[in-house]
Amino acid sequence: MAILDGIDVLVSEVGPRDGLQSIAPVMPTAAKKVWIDALVAAGVREIEVGSFVPAHILPQLADTGEIVAHARQHEGLHVAVLVPNAKGAEAAIAAGAHKITLPFSASETHSLKNLRRTHAQVYEQVEIIAERLRLLPAESRPQFEGAISTAFGCTLEGAIPDDAILRIAGHLMALGCDEVGLSDTTGYANPAQVKRLVRAVHAEIGAAKMTGLHLHNTRGLGLANVVAGLEAGIRTFDSSQGGLGGCPFAPGASGNIVTEDLVFMLEAMGLRTGIDLDCLLVARETLARALPDEPLYGFLPDAGAPLGFVPAG
Amino acid sequence: MAILDGIDVLVSEVGPRDGLQSIAPVMPTAAKKVWIDALVAAGVREIEVGSFVPAHILPQLADTGEIVAHARQHEGLHVAVLVPNAKGAEAAIAAGAHKITLPFSASETHSLKNLRRTHAQVYEQVEIIAERLRLLPAESRPQFEGAISTAFGCTLEGAIPDDAILRIAGHLMALGCDEVGLSDTTGYANPAQVKRLVRAVHAEIGAAKMTGLHLHNTRGLGLANVVAGLEAGIRTFDSSQGGLGGCPFAPGASGNIVTEDLVFMLEAMGLRTGIDLDCLLVARETLARALPDEPLYGFLPDAGAPLGFVPAG
Repeated sequence: MAILDGIDVLVSEVGPRDGLQSIAPVMPTAAKKVWIDALVAAGVREIEVGSFVPAHILPQLADTGEIVAHARQHEGLHVAVLVPNAKGAEAAIAAGAHKITLPFSASETHSLKNLRRTHAQVYEQVEIIAERLRLLPAESRPQFEGAISTAFGCTLEGAIPDDAILRIAGHLMALGCDEVGLSDTTGYANPAQVKRLVRAVHAEIGAAKMTGLHLHNTRGLGLANVVAGLEAGIRTFDSSQGGLGGCPFAPGASGNIVTEDLVFMLEAMGLRTGIDLDCLLVARETLARALPDEPLYGFLPDAGAPLGFVPAG
Repeated sequence: MAILDGIDVLVSEVGPRDGLQSIAPVMPTAAKKVWIDALVAAGVREIEVGSFVPAHILPQLADTGEIVAHARQHEGLHVAVLVPNAKGAEAAIAAGAHKITLPFSASETHSLKNLRRTHAQVYEQVEIIAERLRLLPAESRPQFEGAISTAFGCTLEGAIPDDAILRIAGHLMALGCDEVGLSDTTGYANPAQVKRLVRAVHAEIGAAKMTGLHLHNTRGLGLANVVAGLEAGIRTFDSSQGGLGGCPFAPGASGNIVTEDLVFMLEAMGLRTGIDLDCLLVARETLARALPDEPLYGFLPDAGAPLGFVPAG
């Protein structure tokens, strides 16, 4: 089954990576597996399960190899991981990830803080990874995404010109990425900007090469930006269960859009996600039990679905 | 100056009515005046300052007459009030309100609970009010809006068919309303529905006769629904400072969209509201001081504007 078969929008759960990396407690490996299993049971088709970074930097994700191996047992699940460099990509390949995402900060200041690399140095890593992936047989070659972070503005640099994003997107593709994503790392995006920038990137590299948005809800515009993304043709949205997450290196920027609210909105709009809302709330319970002291966000879990609500799927 | 001169979107503040009616404490009249003055100083051009209902039902709004008189001293401010019936309209006319809004619950069950009247009985009140208004000279005649509440679904009846809304809208206009508004009293609306229903109402009664949306954020979709409304041509949005408000007669439905977040989103999108965000936060402080025990909502007040943010206006 192809990942988009029978659905209209792919909700890509990033809680086990973006959520867990931004909180102090380390979720036990066994609890991560239970949570991932519950997400899969709810119909989630793609999960970013971890990040291949040195354990001393993100101890929360030190078990990513074991988690990838576990997640791969779910037939049909697209297992994604984040990697900061070629070394991380090597580990991701060894673990058998289906998708490798390398973040590229449009803001070079943020890049230096987050990845401790200049733009030139990150491009070099992209090139090395792309060359390495070309050596793999097609059937076992992971998908390779260049995720442009701080694409809608940076807490350190402020506004980022659209032209800069287009240049980066074009260069990432030229260096061998399979696709490019846009990340609102800082929660700066607004709907007009989302629509404008997505369309510009589509014009630059082709709509098929930029299908995903990673949005935060820092200023409450997360779902409004999803609506703008849908208008511009986006069909993959990252989100985090309970709104866990954020960017520890961008002060003030916190909180991915909430998976529960996103799925509710999409299904209410008649867009099939393949995800069962009730089962998703069961998965939320497994998360709440594993992290009893972490606040979980979202409106739908409190308010419940409307009376007589009929999902699209 | 016409109310829309030099702006792209009218943000109509309903906190002094919808916000204050839904909380237990009664804000002192003097504090209301200070708050309204601060809102006007921030550039707010229309405020729903109260409701002409019997004081034993809503003691929070018993001073509406005095508040209207105060608000009218602000030149250029459009002073709106809610009225449940012809008696309330008479009081609104006497007080000198610029706009009279009569809520009409699409759900008859909700209408009986909220206004204690059947649809036929409310239509009768609309007719009486319209006739009364026609006797006034044009220059002192308030604008008369029929606001269709529970237009996007009801916590008691569930889904409301679009056809029912179109019939109500047509009938309200035929009886003499100047315009019709749609209210998501219950926070049930989704962006696809907003766009579809607004377009259908526009086709039914003319786009110029349905310009305003009243949205709640119960399920977190408030601003996403604004984006959909903008796409459909809506240029007036109700909101409540600090997200105060809701409908006390629709269980589980609480929270107007937050004025601060709405103004931020619109200005970020390049749409001029005429409202200064910093001054709006000053007005929020006057509200917080007057109601120290009430929670105020909103993302923008916590997160602040993006670094280097340039408003449209």
